[in-house]
Amino acid sequence: MSSILKIALVQSNFKVGDLKYNSSKIIEVIEKAKIKKLDLLCFPEMAVSGYPPEDLLLSNAFHKQIKKALNNILKHTVGITCIVGHPSIKKDKILNSASVLRNKKNIGTYNKNELPNYGVFDEKRYFSSGNEIFNFKIKGHKIGLSICEDIWINESKYLNKDIPDLLLNLSASPFTINKQKQRMSIIKNFISKSKIPVGYCNLIGGQDELVFDGNSMFLNSEGKVVGCAKSFHEDLLVTNFPFKNIKSVKTNAKNAKVFDALVLGLKDYVSKNGFSKVVIGISGGVDSALVAAISVKALGKSNVLGIAMPSKYNTKISNTLAHKLCANLGIKLKIMPIHELFDLNLNLLYENIFQNTTWDITEENLQSRIRSNILMAISNKMNYMLLSTGNKSEMSMGYSTIYGDLAGGFAPLKDITKSMVYKLCISYNRANPKNKIPNKIITREPSAELKHDQKDSDTLPSYEILDEVLNLYVEKFGTVDEISSSLGLSKAFVRKIVNSIQRNEFKRRQGPPGVKVTDISFGKDRRFPITNGFENF
Amino acid sequence: MSSILKIALVQSNFKVGDLKYNSSKIIEVIEKAKIKKLDLLCFPEMAVSGYPPEDLLLSNAFHKQIKKALNNILKHTVGITCIVGHPSIKKDKILNSASVLRNKKNIGTYNKNELPNYGVFDEKRYFSSGNEIFNFKIKGHKIGLSICEDIWINESKYLNKDIPDLLLNLSASPFTINKQKQRMSIIKNFISKSKIPVGYCNLIGGQDELVFDGNSMFLNSEGKVVGCAKSFHEDLLVTNFPFKNIKSVKTNAKNAKVFDALVLGLKDYVSKNGFSKVVIGISGGVDSALVAAISVKALGKSNVLGIAMPSKYNTKISNTLAHKLCANLGIKLKIMPIHELFDLNLNLLYENIFQNTTWDITEENLQSRIRSNILMAISNKMNYMLLSTGNKSEMSMGYSTIYGDLAGGFAPLKDITKSMVYKLCISYNRANPKNKIPNKIITREPSAELKHDQKDSDTLPSYEILDEVLNLYVEKFGTVDEISSSLGLSKAFVRKIVNSIQRNEFKRRQGPPGVKVTDISFGKDRRFPITNGFENF
Repeated sequence: MSSILKIALVQSNFKVGDLKYNSSKIIEVIEKAKIKKLDLLCFPEMAVSGYPPEDLLLSNAFHKQIKKALNNILKHTVGITCIVGHPSIKKDKILNSASVLRNKKNIGTYNKNELPNYGVFDEKRYFSSGNEIFNFKIKGHKIGLSICEDIWINESKYLNKDIPDLLLNLSASPFTINKQKQRMSIIKNFISKSKIPVGYCNLIGGQDELVFDGNSMFLNSEGKVVGCAKSFHEDLLVTNFPFKNIKSVKTNAKNAKVFDALVLGLKDYVSKNGFSKVVIGISGGVDSALVAAISVKALGKSNVLGIAMPSKYNTKISNTLAHKLCANLGIKLKIMPIHELFDLNLNLLYENIFQNTTWDITEENLQSRIRSNILMAISNKMNYMLLSTGNKSEMSMGYSTIYGDLAGGFAPLKDITKSMVYKLCISYNRANPKNKIPNKIITREPSAELKHDQKDSDTLPSYEILDEVLNLYVEKFGTVDEISSSLGLSKAFVRKIVNSIQRNEFKRRQGPPGVKVTDISFGKDRRFPITNGFENF
Repeated sequence: MSSILKIALVQSNFKVGDLKYNSSKIIEVIEKAKIKKLDLLCFPEMAVSGYPPEDLLLSNAFHKQIKKALNNILKHTVGITCIVGHPSIKKDKILNSASVLRNKKNIGTYNKNELPNYGVFDEKRYFSSGNEIFNFKIKGHKIGLSICEDIWINESKYLNKDIPDLLLNLSASPFTINKQKQRMSIIKNFISKSKIPVGYCNLIGGQDELVFDGNSMFLNSEGKVVGCAKSFHEDLLVTNFPFKNIKSVKTNAKNAKVFDALVLGLKDYVSKNGFSKVVIGISGGVDSALVAAISVKALGKSNVLGIAMPSKYNTKISNTLAHKLCANLGIKLKIMPIHELFDLNLNLLYENIFQNTTWDITEENLQSRIRSNILMAISNKMNYMLLSTGNKSEMSMGYSTIYGDLAGGFAPLKDITKSMVYKLCISYNRANPKNKIPNKIITREPSAELKHDQKDSDTLPSYEILDEVLNLYVEKFGTVDEISSSLGLSKAFVRKIVNSIQRNEFKRRQGPPGVKVTDISFGKDRRFPITNGFENF
């Protein structure tokens, strides 16, 4: 005889490595769930350790403390069943595990079978595969467990064996623009073949370059969503099983919430690294404007400091727009002109070593680096994290100064193309009519303003075209031939862009982390050699 | 009937991704070998692509060109047999292959079985395992093939099956201090179990953070080395098979040639990235002295430029020693004082934003960043690669300024502890009595000279102790308990060091690459999260 089961998916924000914080948080949720008389709690993949713990997994001290944390959690499981994700060690093998804890006993552990080892994932570096399925009984129901990638790949393991009444999947699935759509299709495909209802519990929160978006769900045996948690916020998704025959719930599938991902990614990177404030070089251009808007949403306006550092090449309108932006957003702006520092640097260089040379890109980079020195001094003295404002289009082409505008603790726009920067500004303005980014910032022609009358278009192809090439080359691994015929561009033109992306790997390698939102971001996701003689034909 | 076989192991320096260069080089060796009437040439692992090609392996354009390069090589194999390492694709799977080319035909391909996916290796990200053994016949001899890790792990595959007369192992095995000893023990162990003689062909050359040291060898069925190629230089190791009954040859097993590894790593990084010259900030301290000495060996004295940038905190002796060092090494030194730039920066900051604050680490970092701006301007204008002079001990503790002394295209001492820096200086001086590093540079107390009377020991534990902790923590994954009892240090003291290593991951992540020489270097080898709440107890 089975009776009604009160289940909750616990969509919480954990901290990688902070086992005390994570276990206290888990215990807090358990104690509240007892009051609510819940039967079963499901936490996300690796809740105890945070995800991904990377090489912490190779440390004995780490595994010892994981065991301690699990024992502490265990003490709180009287009268309730909790499924907790954690790393474990069995016969010298490291496993990605989910343990079922009940009445102070571990009543069974499932070990992840499918270990992703592509893109940002390195699970085969650490884990051995579990190679088994696992079910347990509660109130007459048979519950099966799987972990993240398992449901993406090996649904067949469940189809002909010991079929559960409900499959719970513990995930740590990072956000990308297309991810929720992909997840829905994967999970619905699993259900259409197996007829097993699913509870999908995903992590939320930022961890270095990843943002986990939550969107935990219950789906019935017809593949209808019968419950859905928030995206980008902590949530507790409670339901009764068997599910009532209700209409399917609206999900967030079609909303590519890039802005929310950037806000959460920045907020968590700053706070989890012990900062509360950020400093931004405000140029009067669109990138720094968007970074400022994201920062205000993430940290509050009193925690965002703008610094404008005009040189003789900055137009008056840039200065005006910087002021207007900061007034609109309600953040402080300091003006620190760099003319004198620039001249003194040039004197020293031209007297000692640049005799008989002429102005080139050196002088442009120098201005950018004088600015980053000022910003880093403010960061050091006043404990503001410096944000780099470069976008993906610039970084792909090396249109940024290493140790200059590329400098910073975090680069919120690292995976945002210039085209997407404009889109995000426009949608931000629509949603925030009282704190707008001045329209002129969005409509003016982009310029680095490092020499007289400079425009980005002097050096770069139009961003519209560049961003299409970028997408096909970086995210779709297109060849020069494929890209040029697909976009109707000359091969020589595409080849120039593609080789430029390759040649600038050395700069990106020394750049700050930033939130991944596309299918392939620069970072752990894309591992090209710096020393690379490949010529794209 | 078998007859005598003239075999050569081709220990060459290839370029990752530069398929034209690599295939021309392979063809050149083949043509010379024909003149010498050699029967069989064995090239290293992935000779055609260079190793490791990383995410180039995910590009179709790359695989197309690999095929073309192989076809070009094939044309030159009339009258000779060549074993060439290259990536290949079979049924949508990427394989790490060795093809036997003879008389314009590919007579068979072996695919690597054991795919390393630890440390600096990510082979499971790309490759599928071959899962089979492979032999071919030549002049009545049966030759077996294996690739690198295969011989480290699965010798059993050869023991009960189709046993070859000689096993050729194609390797791309990077240098570490202990590596040659490990290799010898692994290969001898294989031979003692299988009684199969081995030809071990290893790559040489630098590729980003790796240096391949060569040391290719022939070993007879008793495990005696009967032929040994140079370390850190290209070589062609020719022998007759069956091997004559000769005495075993002296190998380089006991010589930890760290200096040679640093020279080759720097030389190849600079030249393979299109540079010929380097610029170094010369402080009068031991780190920049060693970097200068390495650079002169790698690139020649006319390609090394020293810049001294004294502030009011630099002692007179530092200035004198900088001059003496550069005179001894025969390199040019320019003096560019930074007093005025420092004062002007401070004025700007204190007038605008640092009111009511006092001197702290900010002012120290500022000096370091003013210097890196000057050095990067020289780098940009004159096409010198800037070298960062920081060592592993400093980088572990974050005793370096991000965008300051950490800036540079390459950091030759990145994996060299301060203790090892001293040892290398002393052995360098012994070997180079006419171009010595001034003794006083080696014997004086280390100081960053960023404030009056500063010493490294004000902030850091003694390097002797720090380096022992570093070794046990980073290379041996020791816990605080283990390290403190092993070295007789208090737990609190060890914990402070260990947590400092962890806290400074963000700086290292934005630092330049440098040659790996220890078991675990900072870089691809050691992947810790930046956002990391783990507390080492």
